[in-house]
Amino acid sequence: MTEPSDRTFSETEGAIMEATYRALREHGYADLTIKRISDEYGKSTAAVHYYYDTKDELLAAFLDYLLKRFVDSIHHIDTTDPEERLELLLDELLVKPQENPDLSIALLEMRSQAPYKATFSERFQQNDEYVRYMLKAVVNHGIDEGVFNDVDADHVTRSLMTIVDGGRTRAVVLDDLTELETARQTAREYVDAMLR
Amino acid sequence: MTEPSDRTFSETEGAIMEATYRALREHGYADLTIKRISDEYGKSTAAVHYYYDTKDELLAAFLDYLLKRFVDSIHHIDTTDPEERLELLLDELLVKPQENPDLSIALLEMRSQAPYKATFSERFQQNDEYVRYMLKAVVNHGIDEGVFNDVDADHVTRSLMTIVDGGRTRAVVLDDLTELETARQTAREYVDAMLR
Repeated sequence: MTEPSDRTFSETEGAIMEATYRALREHGYADLTIKRISDEYGKSTAAVHYYYDTKDELLAAFLDYLLKRFVDSIHHIDTTDPEERLELLLDELLVKPQENPDLSIALLEMRSQAPYKATFSERFQQNDEYVRYMLKAVVNHGIDEGVFNDVDADHVTRSLMTIVDGGRTRAVVLDDLTELETARQTAREYVDAMLR
Repeated sequence: MTEPSDRTFSETEGAIMEATYRALREHGYADLTIKRISDEYGKSTAAVHYYYDTKDELLAAFLDYLLKRFVDSIHHIDTTDPEERLELLLDELLVKPQENPDLSIALLEMRSQAPYKATFSERFQQNDEYVRYMLKAVVNHGIDEGVFNDVDADHVTRSLMTIVDGGRTRAVVLDDLTELETARQTAREYVDAMLR
Protein backbone atom coordinates (compact mmCIF):
# COMPACT_ATOMS: atom_id res chain seq x y z
CA MET A 1 0.00 0.00 0.00
CA THR A 2 1.09 3.59 -0.61
CA GLU A 3 2.39 5.09 2.59
CA PRO A 4 0.46 8.30 3.24
CA SER A 5 3.71 9.49 4.77
CA ASP A 6 5.13 9.57 1.23
CA ARG A 7 3.13 12.73 0.73
CA THR A 8 5.70 15.49 1.14
CA PHE A 9 5.17 19.08 2.26
CA SER A 10 7.53 21.86 1.20
CA GLU A 11 8.76 24.22 3.90
CA THR A 12 6.13 26.79 2.86
CA GLU A 13 3.34 24.22 2.83
CA GLY A 14 4.49 23.01 6.24
CA ALA A 15 4.30 26.57 7.57
CA ILE A 16 0.76 26.94 6.17
CA MET A 17 -0.20 23.63 7.78
CA GLU A 18 1.15 24.79 11.16
CA ALA A 19 -0.82 28.03 10.76
CA THR A 20 -3.94 25.96 9.96
CA TYR A 21 -3.30 23.89 13.08
CA ARG A 22 -3.23 27.01 15.26
CA ALA A 23 -6.24 28.62 13.51
CA LEU A 24 -8.31 25.42 13.87
CA ARG A 25 -7.51 25.13 17.55
CA GLU A 26 -8.47 28.75 18.10
CA HIS A 27 -11.56 29.12 15.92
CA GLY A 28 -12.85 25.56 15.35
CA TYR A 29 -13.85 24.20 11.98
CA ALA A 30 -17.07 26.13 11.29
CA ASP A 31 -15.47 29.54 11.89
CA LEU A 32 -12.23 28.79 10.08
CA THR A 33 -11.46 31.04 7.11
CA ILE A 34 -8.49 31.42 4.75
CA LYS A 35 -8.18 34.91 6.25
CA ARG A 36 -7.71 33.50 9.75
CA ILE A 37 -5.18 30.98 8.49
CA SER A 38 -3.30 33.76 6.64
CA ASP A 39 -3.27 35.83 9.84
CA GLU A 40 -1.65 32.94 11.70
CA TYR A 41 0.72 32.41 8.74
CA GLY A 42 1.65 36.09 8.81
CA LYS A 43 1.14 36.58 5.06
CA SER A 44 -1.67 37.59 2.70
CA THR A 45 -4.62 35.37 1.78
CA ALA A 46 -3.18 35.39 -1.79
CA ALA A 47 -0.04 33.68 -0.46
CA VAL A 48 -2.23 30.88 0.93
CA HIS A 49 -4.47 30.72 -2.15
CA TYR A 50 -1.36 30.25 -4.29
CA TYR A 51 -1.11 26.75 -2.78
CA TYR A 52 -4.74 25.94 -1.98
CA ASP A 53 -7.74 27.10 -4.02
CA THR A 54 -10.36 26.50 -1.37
CA LYS A 55 -10.65 26.05 2.39
CA ASP A 56 -11.75 22.45 1.89
CA GLU A 57 -8.75 21.70 -0.32
CA LEU A 58 -6.46 23.17 2.32
CA LEU A 59 -8.19 21.14 5.04
CA ALA A 60 -7.87 17.93 3.02
CA ALA A 61 -4.11 18.62 2.84
CA PHE A 62 -4.21 19.29 6.58
CA LEU A 63 -5.64 15.80 7.20
CA ASP A 64 -2.72 14.38 5.16
CA TYR A 65 -0.38 16.47 7.26
CA LEU A 66 -1.83 15.17 10.54
CA LEU A 67 -1.43 11.58 9.36
CA LYS A 68 2.15 12.30 8.34
CA ARG A 69 2.86 13.74 11.80
CA PHE A 70 1.31 10.67 13.37
CA VAL A 71 3.31 8.29 11.17
CA ASP A 72 6.50 10.23 11.96
CA SER A 73 5.84 9.92 15.69
CA ILE A 74 5.29 6.17 15.21
CA HIS A 75 8.61 5.86 13.39
CA HIS A 76 10.29 7.13 16.54
CA ILE A 77 9.04 4.08 18.43
CA ASP A 78 12.16 1.97 18.10
CA THR A 79 11.16 -1.16 19.99
CA THR A 80 10.32 -4.20 17.85
CA ASP A 81 8.83 -6.14 20.77
CA PRO A 82 5.19 -6.63 19.68
CA GLU A 83 3.65 -6.33 23.16
CA GLU A 84 5.53 -3.14 23.99
CA ARG A 85 4.99 -1.73 20.51
CA LEU A 86 1.22 -2.28 20.66
CA GLU A 87 1.05 -0.47 24.03
CA LEU A 88 3.03 2.48 22.65
CA LEU A 89 0.83 2.68 19.54
CA LEU A 90 -2.29 2.77 21.74
CA ASP A 91 -0.65 5.50 23.85
CA GLU A 92 -0.09 7.56 20.69
CA LEU A 93 -3.76 7.07 19.76
CA LEU A 94 -5.34 7.70 23.15
CA VAL A 95 -2.88 9.44 25.50
CA LYS A 96 -1.30 11.94 23.09
CA PRO A 97 -4.68 13.55 22.09
CA GLN A 98 -5.16 14.55 25.74
CA GLU A 99 -2.55 17.26 25.14
CA ASN A 100 -4.65 18.89 22.50
CA PRO A 101 -8.42 18.95 23.17
CA ASP A 102 -9.09 21.91 20.84
CA LEU A 103 -7.75 19.97 17.87
CA SER A 104 -9.97 17.03 18.83
CA ILE A 105 -13.02 19.32 18.78
CA ALA A 106 -12.16 20.58 15.27
CA LEU A 107 -11.48 17.05 14.05
CA LEU A 108 -14.86 15.76 15.25
CA GLU A 109 -16.53 18.61 13.35
CA MET A 110 -14.61 17.62 10.22
CA ARG A 111 -15.42 13.94 10.73
CA SER A 112 -19.12 14.78 11.02
CA GLN A 113 -18.87 16.44 7.60
CA ALA A 114 -17.46 13.33 5.89
CA PRO A 115 -20.92 12.27 4.60
CA TYR A 116 -21.16 15.62 2.78
CA LYS A 117 -17.58 16.15 1.57
CA ALA A 118 -15.89 13.50 -0.55
CA THR A 119 -12.38 14.94 0.01
CA PHE A 120 -12.77 14.59 3.79
CA SER A 121 -14.37 11.16 3.49
CA GLU A 122 -11.48 9.85 1.35
CA ARG A 123 -8.88 11.11 3.83
CA PHE A 124 -10.61 9.71 6.90
CA GLN A 125 -11.01 6.33 5.18
CA GLN A 126 -7.39 6.30 4.00
CA ASN A 127 -6.04 7.42 7.37
CA ASP A 128 -8.09 4.81 9.21
CA GLU A 129 -6.89 2.14 6.81
CA TYR A 130 -3.28 3.14 7.39
CA VAL A 131 -3.51 3.18 11.18
CA ARG A 132 -5.25 -0.22 11.12
CA TYR A 133 -2.50 -1.50 8.80
CA MET A 134 0.14 -0.47 11.35
CA LEU A 135 -1.76 -2.02 14.27
CA LYS A 136 -2.35 -5.20 12.28
CA ALA A 137 1.35 -5.53 11.46
CA VAL A 138 2.15 -5.49 15.19
CA VAL A 139 -0.61 -7.99 16.02
CA ASN A 140 0.52 -10.33 13.23
CA HIS A 141 4.14 -9.98 14.33
CA GLY A 142 3.11 -11.00 17.88
CA ILE A 143 1.15 -13.98 16.52
CA ASP A 144 4.19 -15.08 14.45
CA GLU A 145 6.44 -14.81 17.51
CA GLY A 146 3.97 -16.79 19.61
CA VAL A 147 3.41 -14.01 22.19
CA PHE A 148 -0.16 -13.28 21.01
CA ASN A 149 -3.04 -15.72 20.49
CA ASP A 150 -3.78 -16.70 16.91
CA VAL A 151 -6.68 -14.24 16.50
CA ASP A 152 -8.41 -12.63 13.53
CA ALA A 153 -5.97 -9.69 13.37
CA ASP A 154 -8.28 -7.70 11.10
CA HIS A 155 -11.18 -7.89 13.56
CA VAL A 156 -9.01 -7.14 16.60
CA THR A 157 -7.52 -4.02 15.00
CA ARG A 158 -10.98 -2.80 13.93
CA SER A 159 -12.17 -3.33 17.51
CA LEU A 160 -9.22 -1.36 18.88
CA MET A 161 -9.99 1.49 16.48
CA THR A 162 -13.65 1.36 17.62
CA ILE A 163 -12.44 1.88 21.20
CA VAL A 164 -10.08 4.67 20.05
CA ASP A 165 -12.79 6.49 18.10
CA GLY A 166 -15.28 6.01 20.93
CA GLY A 167 -12.90 7.56 23.44
CA ARG A 168 -12.14 10.48 21.14
CA THR A 169 -15.81 11.17 20.38
CA ARG A 170 -16.81 10.94 24.04
CA ALA A 171 -13.98 13.23 25.21
CA VAL A 172 -15.31 15.96 22.88
CA VAL A 173 -19.08 15.45 23.24
CA LEU A 174 -19.01 14.99 27.02
CA ASP A 175 -16.22 17.59 27.45
CA ASP A 176 -14.24 15.17 29.60
CA LEU A 177 -10.65 14.16 28.88
CA THR A 178 -10.90 11.25 31.34
CA GLU A 179 -12.96 9.49 28.64
CA LEU A 180 -9.64 9.00 26.81
CA GLU A 181 -8.17 7.39 29.94
CA THR A 182 -11.21 5.12 30.17
CA ALA A 183 -10.78 4.14 26.51
CA ARG A 184 -7.06 3.48 27.08
CA GLN A 185 -7.99 1.15 29.95
CA THR A 186 -10.70 -0.53 27.82
CA ALA A 187 -8.14 -1.11 25.04
CA ARG A 188 -5.73 -2.63 27.60
CA GLU A 189 -8.45 -4.98 28.89
CA TYR A 190 -9.46 -5.92 25.33
CA VAL A 191 -5.84 -6.67 24.34
CA ASP A 192 -5.37 -8.76 27.51
CA ALA A 193 -8.56 -10.73 26.85
CA MET A 194 -8.06 -11.35 23.14
CA LEU A 195 -4.30 -11.57 22.62
CA ARG A 196 -2.87 -13.06 25.81
CA MET B 1 -32.22 10.35 39.50
CA THR B 2 -34.92 12.02 37.41
CA GLU B 3 -35.98 9.76 34.58
CA PRO B 4 -35.62 11.66 31.31
CA SER B 5 -38.61 9.60 30.19
CA ASP B 6 -40.70 11.66 32.64
CA ARG B 7 -40.51 14.48 30.10
CA THR B 8 -43.88 14.31 28.34
CA PHE B 9 -44.77 15.42 24.83
CA SER B 10 -48.30 16.47 23.91
CA GLU B 11 -49.82 15.02 20.75
CA THR B 12 -48.95 18.22 18.85
CA GLU B 13 -45.37 18.28 20.16
CA GLY B 14 -45.03 14.59 19.25
CA ALA B 15 -46.17 15.39 15.70
CA ILE B 16 -43.60 18.21 15.46
CA MET B 17 -40.90 15.84 16.76
CA GLU B 18 -41.82 13.24 14.13
CA ALA B 19 -41.66 15.97 11.47
CA THR B 20 -38.22 16.99 12.81
CA TYR B 21 -37.13 13.36 12.60
CA ARG B 22 -38.09 13.17 8.91
CA ALA B 23 -36.60 16.61 8.09
CA LEU B 24 -33.29 15.75 9.80
CA ARG B 25 -33.01 12.45 7.93
CA GLU B 26 -33.68 14.22 4.65
CA HIS B 27 -31.68 17.43 5.02
CA GLY B 28 -29.10 16.74 7.74
CA TYR B 29 -28.43 19.08 10.63
CA ALA B 30 -26.66 21.98 8.87
CA ASP B 31 -29.43 22.43 6.28
CA LEU B 32 -32.30 21.98 8.69
CA THR B 33 -34.66 24.97 9.01
CA ILE B 34 -37.93 25.58 10.85
CA LYS B 35 -39.44 25.98 7.36
CA ARG B 36 -38.40 22.46 6.38
CA ILE B 37 -39.74 21.07 9.65
CA SER B 38 -43.03 22.95 9.10
CA ASP B 39 -43.27 21.51 5.59
CA GLU B 40 -42.93 17.99 7.00
CA TYR B 41 -45.41 18.88 9.73
CA GLY B 42 -47.87 20.19 7.13
CA LYS B 43 -48.51 23.48 8.95
CA SER B 44 -47.08 27.02 9.01
CA THR B 45 -43.74 27.99 10.58
CA ALA B 46 -45.81 30.04 13.09
CA ALA B 47 -47.45 26.81 14.27
CA VAL B 48 -43.99 25.39 15.03
CA HIS B 49 -42.68 28.65 16.55
CA TYR B 50 -45.66 28.64 18.92
CA TYR B 51 -43.95 25.71 20.68
CA TYR B 52 -40.27 26.36 19.98
CA ASP B 53 -38.67 29.78 19.69
CA THR B 54 -35.51 28.68 17.88
CA LYS B 55 -34.21 25.76 15.87
CA ASP B 56 -31.76 24.90 18.64
CA GLU B 57 -34.52 24.88 21.25
CA LEU B 58 -36.54 22.56 19.03
CA LEU B 59 -33.52 20.30 18.50
CA ALA B 60 -32.81 20.16 22.23
CA ALA B 61 -36.40 18.94 22.70
CA PHE B 62 -35.78 16.46 19.86
CA LEU B 63 -32.83 14.98 21.79
CA ASP B 64 -35.17 14.53 24.80
CA TYR B 65 -37.67 12.89 22.46
CA LEU B 66 -35.07 10.45 21.09
CA LEU B 67 -34.07 9.44 24.61
CA LYS B 68 -37.72 8.96 25.52
CA ARG B 69 -38.20 6.70 22.47
CA PHE B 70 -35.12 4.75 23.48
CA VAL B 71 -36.28 4.38 27.08
CA ASP B 72 -39.74 3.28 25.87
CA SER B 73 -38.18 0.61 23.64
CA ILE B 74 -36.13 -0.59 26.66
CA HIS B 75 -39.28 -0.85 28.78
CA HIS B 76 -40.57 -3.39 26.27
CA ILE B 77 -37.70 -5.72 27.14
CA ASP B 78 -39.52 -7.88 29.64
CA THR B 79 -36.81 -10.35 30.63
CA THR B 80 -35.21 -9.82 34.02
CA ASP B 81 -32.37 -12.27 33.36
CA PRO B 82 -29.25 -10.05 33.56
CA GLU B 83 -27.26 -11.83 30.85
CA GLU B 84 -30.13 -11.77 28.36
CA ARG B 85 -31.09 -8.23 29.31
CA LEU B 86 -27.56 -6.91 28.76
CA GLU B 87 -27.44 -8.51 25.30
CA LEU B 88 -30.80 -6.95 24.38
CA LEU B 89 -29.69 -3.51 25.61
CA LEU B 90 -26.55 -3.72 23.48
CA ASP B 91 -28.70 -4.75 20.51
CA GLU B 92 -30.82 -1.63 21.02
CA LEU B 93 -27.66 0.49 21.11
CA LEU B 94 -25.80 -1.07 18.18
CA VAL B 95 -28.16 -3.11 16.01
CA LYS B 96 -31.20 -0.80 15.95
CA PRO B 97 -29.24 2.24 14.57
CA GLN B 98 -28.43 0.18 11.47
CA GLU B 99 -32.03 0.76 10.39
CA ASN B 100 -31.57 4.48 10.30
CA PRO B 101 -28.18 5.68 8.96
CA ASP B 102 -29.47 9.15 8.02
CA LEU B 103 -30.44 9.87 11.60
CA SER B 104 -26.98 8.74 12.74
CA ILE B 105 -25.39 11.24 10.34
CA ALA B 106 -27.49 14.11 11.72
CA LEU B 107 -26.79 13.04 15.31
CA LEU B 108 -23.01 13.03 14.77
CA GLU B 109 -23.28 16.58 13.40
CA MET B 110 -25.22 17.60 16.50
CA ARG B 111 -22.75 15.83 18.79
CA SER B 112 -19.84 17.67 17.13
CA GLN B 113 -21.61 20.95 18.03
CA ALA B 114 -21.83 20.09 21.74
CA PRO B 115 -18.66 22.12 22.55
CA TYR B 116 -20.36 25.22 21.08
CA LYS B 117 -23.97 24.76 22.25
CA ALA B 118 -24.73 24.33 25.94
CA THR B 119 -28.28 23.03 25.30
CA PHE B 120 -26.91 20.16 23.15
CA SER B 121 -24.06 19.50 25.56
CA GLU B 122 -26.46 19.18 28.53
CA ARG B 123 -28.70 16.75 26.65
CA PHE B 124 -25.86 14.53 25.43
CA GLN B 125 -24.41 14.39 28.95
CA GLN B 126 -27.79 13.66 30.52
CA ASN B 127 -28.69 11.03 27.93
CA ASP B 128 -25.33 9.32 28.30
CA GLU B 129 -25.72 9.30 32.06
CA TYR B 130 -29.15 7.74 31.78
CA VAL B 131 -28.10 4.99 29.36
CA ARG B 132 -25.08 4.18 31.57
CA TYR B 133 -27.41 4.10 34.60
CA MET B 134 -29.56 1.48 32.85
CA LEU B 135 -26.56 -0.62 31.80
CA LYS B 136 -25.08 -0.38 35.28
CA ALA B 137 -28.33 -1.57 36.88
CA VAL B 138 -28.17 -4.74 34.75
CA VAL B 139 -24.48 -5.31 35.50
CA ASN B 140 -25.04 -4.85 39.26
CA HIS B 141 -28.07 -7.15 39.13
CA GLY B 142 -25.89 -9.82 37.49
CA ILE B 143 -23.19 -9.34 40.14
CA ASP B 144 -25.80 -9.68 42.93
CA GLU B 145 -27.15 -12.86 41.35
CA GLY B 146 -23.65 -14.27 41.00
CA VAL B 147 -23.83 -14.66 37.19
CA PHE B 148 -21.35 -11.82 36.53
CA ASN B 149 -17.88 -11.29 38.02
CA ASP B 150 -17.62 -8.72 40.80
CA VAL B 151 -16.31 -5.95 38.53
CA ASP B 152 -16.22 -2.15 38.76
CA ALA B 153 -19.68 -1.72 37.19
CA ASP B 154 -19.11 1.99 36.55
CA HIS B 155 -15.95 1.34 34.52
CA VAL B 156 -17.47 -1.57 32.58
CA THR B 157 -20.52 0.46 31.54
CA ARG B 158 -18.33 3.41 30.50
CA SER B 159 -16.24 1.00 28.42
CA LEU B 160 -19.35 -0.42 26.77
CA MET B 161 -20.53 3.11 25.91
CA THR B 162 -17.05 3.82 24.48
CA ILE B 163 -17.50 0.83 22.16
CA VAL B 164 -21.06 1.95 21.30
CA ASP B 165 -19.99 5.53 20.50
CA GLY B 166 -16.96 4.28 18.54
CA GLY B 167 -19.14 2.04 16.37
CA ARG B 168 -21.64 4.84 15.75
CA THR B 169 -18.96 7.40 14.85
CA ARG B 170 -17.15 4.97 12.55
CA ALA B 171 -20.35 3.91 10.77
CA VAL B 172 -20.96 7.56 9.82
CA VAL B 173 -17.41 8.75 9.12
CA LEU B 174 -16.39 5.65 7.15
CA ASP B 175 -19.86 5.31 5.58
CA ASP B 176 -20.00 1.64 6.53
CA LEU B 177 -22.80 0.09 8.58
CA THR B 178 -20.71 -3.04 9.20
CA GLU B 179 -18.76 -0.92 11.71
CA LEU B 180 -21.83 -1.25 13.97
CA GLU B 181 -21.65 -5.06 13.59
CA THR B 182 -17.96 -4.95 14.47
CA ALA B 183 -18.73 -2.84 17.55
CA ARG B 184 -21.51 -5.27 18.55
CA GLN B 185 -18.99 -8.13 18.34
CA THR B 186 -16.40 -6.11 20.30
CA ALA B 187 -18.99 -5.44 23.03
CA ARG B 188 -19.79 -9.18 23.17
CA GLU B 189 -16.09 -10.04 23.52
CA TYR B 190 -15.62 -7.37 26.17
CA VAL B 191 -18.63 -8.61 28.18
CA ASP B 192 -17.37 -12.20 27.92
CA ALA B 193 -13.89 -11.21 29.08
CA MET B 194 -14.89 -8.94 31.95
CA LEU B 195 -18.15 -10.34 33.30
CA ARG B 196 -17.98 -14.11 32.79
